[in-house]
Amino acid sequence: MKKPLIVVNFKTYAESTGEKAVSMARYCEEVSHAHGVSIVAVPQIPDIYRVACSVKIPVYAQHIDGVGAGSFTGHVTADCILAAGACGTLINHSERRILLSDIDSAVRAAKKAGLTTIVCTNNIAVTSAAATLSPDFVAIEPPELIGSGIPVSKADPDIVRGAVAAVKKINPEVEVLCGAGISKGEDVAAALELGTSGVLLASGVIKAKDPRAALLDLVGKI
Amino acid sequence: MKKPLIVVNFKTYAESTGEKAVSMARYCEEVSHAHGVSIVAVPQIPDIYRVACSVKIPVYAQHIDGVGAGSFTGHVTADCILAAGACGTLINHSERRILLSDIDSAVRAAKKAGLTTIVCTNNIAVTSAAATLSPDFVAIEPPELIGSGIPVSKADPDIVRGAVAAVKKINPEVEVLCGAGISKGEDVAAALELGTSGVLLASGVIKAKDPRAALLDLVGKI
Amino acid sequence: MKKPLIVVNFKTYAESTGEKAVSMARYCEEVSHAHGVSIVAVPQIPDIYRVACSVKIPVYAQHIDGVGAGSFTGHVTADCILAAGACGTLINHSERRILLSDIDSAVRAAKKAGLTTIVCTNNIAVTSAAATLSPDFVAIEPPELIGSGIPVSKADPDIVRGAVAAVKKINPEVEVLCGAGISKGEDVAAALELGTSGVLLASGVIKAKDPRAALLDLVGKI
Amino acid sequence: MKKPLIVVNFKTYAESTGEKAVSMARYCEEVSHAHGVSIVAVPQIPDIYRVACSVKIPVYAQHIDGVGAGSFTGHVTADCILAAGACGTLINHSERRILLSDIDSAVRAAKKAGLTTIVCTNNIAVTSAAATLSPDFVAIEPPELIGSGIPVSKADPDIVRGAVAAVKKINPEVEVLCGAGISKGEDVAAALELGTSGVLLASGVIKAKDPRAALLDLVGKI
Repeated sequence: MKKPLIVVNFKTYAESTGEKAVSMARYCEEVSHAHGVSIVAVPQIPDIYRVACSVKIPVYAQHIDGVGAGSFTGHVTADCILAAGACGTLINHSERRILLSDIDSAVRAAKKAGLTTIVCTNNIAVTSAAATLSPDFVAIEPPELIGSGIPVSKADPDIVRGAVAAVKKINPEVEVLCGAGISKGEDVAAALELGTSGVLLASGVIKAKDPRAALLDLVGKI
Repeated sequence: MKKPLIVVNFKTYAESTGEKAVSMARYCEEVSHAHGVSIVAVPQIPDIYRVACSVKIPVYAQHIDGVGAGSFTGHVTADCILAAGACGTLINHSERRILLSDIDSAVRAAKKAGLTTIVCTNNIAVTSAAATLSPDFVAIEPPELIGSGIPVSKADPDIVRGAVAAVKKINPEVEVLCGAGISKGEDVAAALELGTSGVLLASGVIKAKDPRAALLDLVGKI
Repeated sequence: MKKPLIVVNFKTYAESTGEKAVSMARYCEEVSHAHGVSIVAVPQIPDIYRVACSVKIPVYAQHIDGVGAGSFTGHVTADCILAAGACGTLINHSERRILLSDIDSAVRAAKKAGLTTIVCTNNIAVTSAAATLSPDFVAIEPPELIGSGIPVSKADPDIVRGAVAAVKKINPEVEVLCGAGISKGEDVAAALELGTSGVLLASGVIKAKDPRAALLDLVGKI
Repeated sequence: MKKPLIVVNFKTYAESTGEKAVSMARYCEEVSHAHGVSIVAVPQIPDIYRVACSVKIPVYAQHIDGVGAGSFTGHVTADCILAAGACGTLINHSERRILLSDIDSAVRAAKKAGLTTIVCTNNIAVTSAAATLSPDFVAIEPPELIGSGIPVSKADPDIVRGAVAAVKKINPEVEVLCGAGISKGEDVAAALELGTSGVLLASGVIKAKDPRAALLDLVGKI
């Protein structure tokens, strides 16, 4: 995937559920292709299949469990989201934290299935811990800034710089994303300046009056 | 839905993932239509859409969370599984227990979306508790018999009778299913004799050498 | 225990930790004995023993797990809090929700040990569900009012009346407490008027400038 | 604390609850003082106070939550176990796994309170992750060997060696313990040979017919 990476989390917003998830993913695809920027659509798990069938940009899951095939009910496995058309997954999102041992199992299962992994974290120490598990990306999101409208890249550049430095020390192959409060092209530019490979955002696009315009603004300064 | 109800949980078995979930659901459909018995397919959450697009029998989710539209990541909402084509859901399966307050929210959210609800329980007391929340069904499954091959209807008929009696006392409109160890037509017949409206099973069909033959056996004594 | 019951949850407040838990329990004891009102002290779990050794009022645990003796680490068992001097326990507090099946196990384990049980709930439906498990008390606390300073008995008398009516229908031997926003004697009086057997409160006493005065005010209108 | 460290987890065993926790801790104390070996007693949380008042060896908690003073009910805080007499704590035991972000908070809270921290882990990758959080110790316990009677130091020496090497790379100040199946002095000797600073065990002592004899055997080859 070409850098920088813009990862759009659809959450469970009504504006990005079911048929609207497909429309939202199409906006992402349109802007991605028009501007040559990698945009990843992260719909709800039941929407992965229909979204993946409809667009030619990467589709990721919002979560997988650290279990495989077997006697598990209601769990989301790497193999099943792969079969549904996903090519990556968020793991340990701040709204869906999992046990450390399950982050490890989930990263392993995803890698085995050939899925790209983004482990979400809340501070520099936890980012270092996540980096030891060698996911493709860690995404640092200070919880107090999530949904705040105040971009982490402005509010707390040191935490982003610190995360980048800490990860390089643990495993230079792991790339860093940042999230929380991102909604403008200047936030993305600032995030890249700080050494990240891109951003993770949700409401800045999904809850925007005009999501396509929001996406265009986001990629405008790259 | 016509009674009795045969609910087939696909779990995360490899034999019922992705394209194989569609094949498995087609066996269920074929036997359901040929024998006039209600069979419900319960695929993994990422498989709901493709299964629901492929068969004309009810498709249920294995789990929903007790949250609605909003800032939730990795959660499975009633609205999203409805949009994906499900018409019902398991709640609180023994492999996916949730908080009492979340069972309540999940049942409410499912009802509001027009979904049929099956709340799974482990003993008579918990079955009574679940019945107060007025789901369409409660499904009692003694944990020690799950996957045992020993049918609850034979091993512990008193727990099934007790659950039926307890539920009638709390809310006679709630119907009772039973599960754990069910694999034969005689198990289904015994479950109905004990006052249930049907059964919940998984490995008895999915892990059978010939799932279609297993389904045929299941409905053979009704 | 003589009604009404005033249950004082010490939470993890600094004002009621360690030696201060003992002092706080002594205030409860003093007011209880002086006014003939039942006041229960609910210190943190590590403080149960020293508090129970120091006062002659009932001491309850804030939480127990639904497990017994065995290979469990970090779990709080009924037998262990009994041995430490507790004579009752909260179960499923809004800040420590547990699975429905664990509420059931915890109530059973507590009863077997001879402990008084208070199952906390968030609405009328969940209160009914809890009542089927036959704890000694259910304590309804609308989450939106917890810590609000607005007493449930004033803000939402219907939820309290509804809970009392629902519980009587399920099991008339289960008594109802209410909580959330309680801090004054008039709140207690209102709660009793609504048919409850008492109240559950925390910050109204523990965070008061003068906890003894707060307790005196609480029992003043009974 | 003088190495090697023998950490005895009392779990919720009946043999080490309440007054029996005190007796068990006295055996630990007696053998520790007689042989100059550091033995740590890890009683259930409600037993910490009475055990800590009765013996002059270190007493640790089995678990703390990653929260501090405040509106938390049923949570175990670093400050409260310190006030109860503990001087350290297990974190993330295999029977009490917690979220990665909570391991981080728990380690921070414990350090701030001056408590020694042992973070439990299940494999080498998770051990590396835990080491980045700079606890005093990590304790690797392969889940499949816990309670098996087959000592990890014999059954899987490579996992122990690998954990020691991985931790040294991340943070050489973090020491490594190992656990699972340990019951003999030779198991302890083997663990030390492999580069650990000691062992974590439970049933090998607590469920022994003669716990004092078991302890004597444990320290016999050091």
